Amino acid sequence: MADPITDVLVTPVAFADPPLLNAAGVHQPYALRAVVRVRTASGRTGLGETYGDAPHLALLRRAAPVLRGLDVFDTNRMVARVAAELRGADAPDAHGLTGASSPTKSLARVVSPFEVAMLDLAGQLTERPVHALLGGKVRDAVPFAAYLFYKWERHPGGEPDGWGAALDPDGIVAQARAMVARYGFGSLKLKGGVFPPDAEIAAVRALRTALPDLPVRLDPNAAWTVRTSLRVARELDGDLQYLEDPTAGRQAMARVAADAPMPLATNMCVVAFDHLPEAVRLGSVQVILADHHYWGGLRASMRLAAMCETFGIGLSMHSNSHLGISLAAMVHLAAAAPALSYPCDTHTPWAVDDVVTSPLSIVDGSVRVPDAPGLGVTLDEAALDRLHRQYLECGITARDDAGYLRTVRTDFRRQVAAW
Amino acid sequence: MADPITDVLVTPVAFADPPLLNAAGVHQPYALRAVVRVRTASGRTGLGETYGDAPHLALLRRAAPVLRGLDVFDTNRMVARVAAELRGADAPDAHGLTGASSPTKSLARVVSPFEVAMLDLAGQLTERPVHALLGGKVRDAVPFAAYLFYKWERHPGGEPDGWGAALDPDGIVAQARAMVARYGFGSLKLKGGVFPPDAEIAAVRALRTALPDLPVRLDPNAAWTVRTSLRVARELDGDLQYLEDPTAGRQAMARVAADAPMPLATNMCVVAFDHLPEAVRLGSVQVILADHHYWGGLRASMRLAAMCETFGIGLSMHSNSHLGISLAAMVHLAAAAPALSYPCDTHTPWAVDDVVTSPLSIVDGSVRVPDAPGLGVTLDEAALDRLHRQYLECGITARDDAGYLRTVRTDFRRQVAAW
Repeated sequence: MADPITDVLVTPVAFADPPLLNAAGVHQPYALRAVVRVRTASGRTGLGETYGDAPHLALLRRAAPVLRGLDVFDTNRMVARVAAELRGADAPDAHGLTGASSPTKSLARVVSPFEVAMLDLAGQLTERPVHALLGGKVRDAVPFAAYLFYKWERHPGGEPDGWGAALDPDGIVAQARAMVARYGFGSLKLKGGVFPPDAEIAAVRALRTALPDLPVRLDPNAAWTVRTSLRVARELDGDLQYLEDPTAGRQAMARVAADAPMPLATNMCVVAFDHLPEAVRLGSVQVILADHHYWGGLRASMRLAAMCETFGIGLSMHSNSHLGISLAAMVHLAAAAPALSYPCDTHTPWAVDDVVTSPLSIVDGSVRVPDAPGLGVTLDEAALDRLHRQYLECGITARDDAGYLRTVRTDFRRQVAAW
Repeated sequence: MADPITDVLVTPVAFADPPLLNAAGVHQPYALRAVVRVRTASGRTGLGETYGDAPHLALLRRAAPVLRGLDVFDTNRMVARVAAELRGADAPDAHGLTGASSPTKSLARVVSPFEVAMLDLAGQLTERPVHALLGGKVRDAVPFAAYLFYKWERHPGGEPDGWGAALDPDGIVAQARAMVARYGFGSLKLKGGVFPPDAEIAAVRALRTALPDLPVRLDPNAAWTVRTSLRVARELDGDLQYLEDPTAGRQAMARVAADAPMPLATNMCVVAFDHLPEAVRLGSVQVILADHHYWGGLRASMRLAAMCETFGIGLSMHSNSHLGISLAAMVHLAAAAPALSYPCDTHTPWAVDDVVTSPLSIVDGSVRVPDAPGLGVTLDEAALDRLHRQYLECGITARDDAGYLRTVRTDFRRQVAAW
């Protein structure tokens, strides 16, 4: 049953993305991803999906050839080979929403789609779903939260995307109602850090009034000072399931956590294993948003999940703009992680395009866990070609929310401790 | 490729064991183990090995039927079913060398041999070694330490076992030389807690003088007070690779660790995941001896290994008297755990019997990692029958080192903070 890897293809794609506002700026008309295809001697193809920014893409392409000859189960050796090949290379990360880049973080990002593709292959080979290779699903459906964004009605010069503008509490409530109506979400997450805190407090309260049964989270991406974070936390006492990254850094987060009435969550100040000891010591966070794309893959994320359980930290899941390969990987991970304690984030509703033939769908706020072999999704070759051409034509080579917003608001600077 | 579990056999065995002295007493003439056979519809058999004490055996037998119908990959569901079946049952542990029993600890012990047997089966099914299912080996050979014991020449009324008596530094040095000559060990571990500390200090110094190139560890199984632990630690500065469980409990260990010149190791005060937060907070230990038999299996031990790496704690491996199924499982685990930072413990040299046809062998102090499918060992049915009859005839139903020593030294009490 030997089936060594013969080649690895890395294909950048661009897909239409609405003008979603955040502390770093606004989403550009196209979001970038890279689709990884790992092929074996028997002709099988395993799929992975990751960031499509140029510096990351360069590392992926540099690393890809070293997978040749590996057994699809041998992910430890894959990591060792990639580490040896990259020798501490670093892929700077322009938007910086998960903090400064580093060689360790870059390595974790590069190996992740390869590991996912290898698990997809191992699943196909054993006729088992990926979750079975992680120990087996502990739930049959994975709940997701509606991911609400302040947004414009359209990109400058573009067509309306159909979701309408959302620039005040009424707009956010309308967006929430539309998203809940379409997908049945049972909880809400608002991306904040866009307007002054009082405006975002008003939006949260409007959501609580309009949809009182749905828990709400707020994520200002570290746009606030400690003092502001504590004021908002007190004002929203009873209204937030958790408050995500109100301020920057494990020390400042610990100062907020000490007095905030709700749990603090993060996908910014604890984004690598070497951040955990300090976060545990200081009590910086009560919830970690796992993300296999930057934690080093699905097995590494399972280890993170175990650490959260052991150290009494809640577990949720982070999302960037993504396509259906990532959604499938996220669902298998969430299915197999006993510690998952909150619905996951996903940008799925915001992406109209996909690279898989039958994307997993969100029904009643959840995705049914696929039990087909591997990831359970199939590449749509025509769509991949189309989105790759779109990548070549769109002229975007790295995410730059700030630069894009500055084309409209020339004085914009990223909101870090802005309030 | 579906191959559901059809039945599970749990067979207690007894095998001849030399009179090895420790803080709890002395090893009885027979050590007990239980051999677990998990069978599938296709006729495959997966092997596991665990403790053979009666209370544990009762829980194993109660749990075994719930595995029926499970897929061999579905270890998470196995754990959930066993937990539901045992409903918080506890198997008291007479010798107490890993602390008081608890429902959580008992559950981890019961699921472990089932998980190992399921991984053995998953490996056979995928034609991959068990280490491949844990991410793949990161080393081709696993180093072990010579496990030295104070011992009598023979059991009362028995024949000499050929190792001779070891009741003073000369005896320990002779034992070390014999064991190194036979197995090529590159490091030494002395089980202490038997004689007053100065006698054991003298034994360590004698080992250092006789075999200066071989690192030495000393494990008195918490026989000392904090004050004595610190005195011994200072006297053996430069002579010990690590000092294992000098005293009892995470708080007392932390007080020793704060001033001891060498790392402290444990397989007594951190033996379950819920012990880790306090141990990390207090700095109780610098090395944890993993043991899949009580940490809940191989995947759980891999999670422990990841936590050790993340929290800057060294990783070694603990051993109880065991046979060749456990040795194989230990080797696959050690092969796949990148964080392993010390040679592992094993009682292999002390066991003359086995239940596998071709036990893995220790050559040049290491065991070559098997790459055959599954665990890579085959049950010797005739030997299993013989050792099972021996179990039925020997009259021992639970390990009782203290009770056995009291048949010789009527006033013996277990050495806890005795010095």
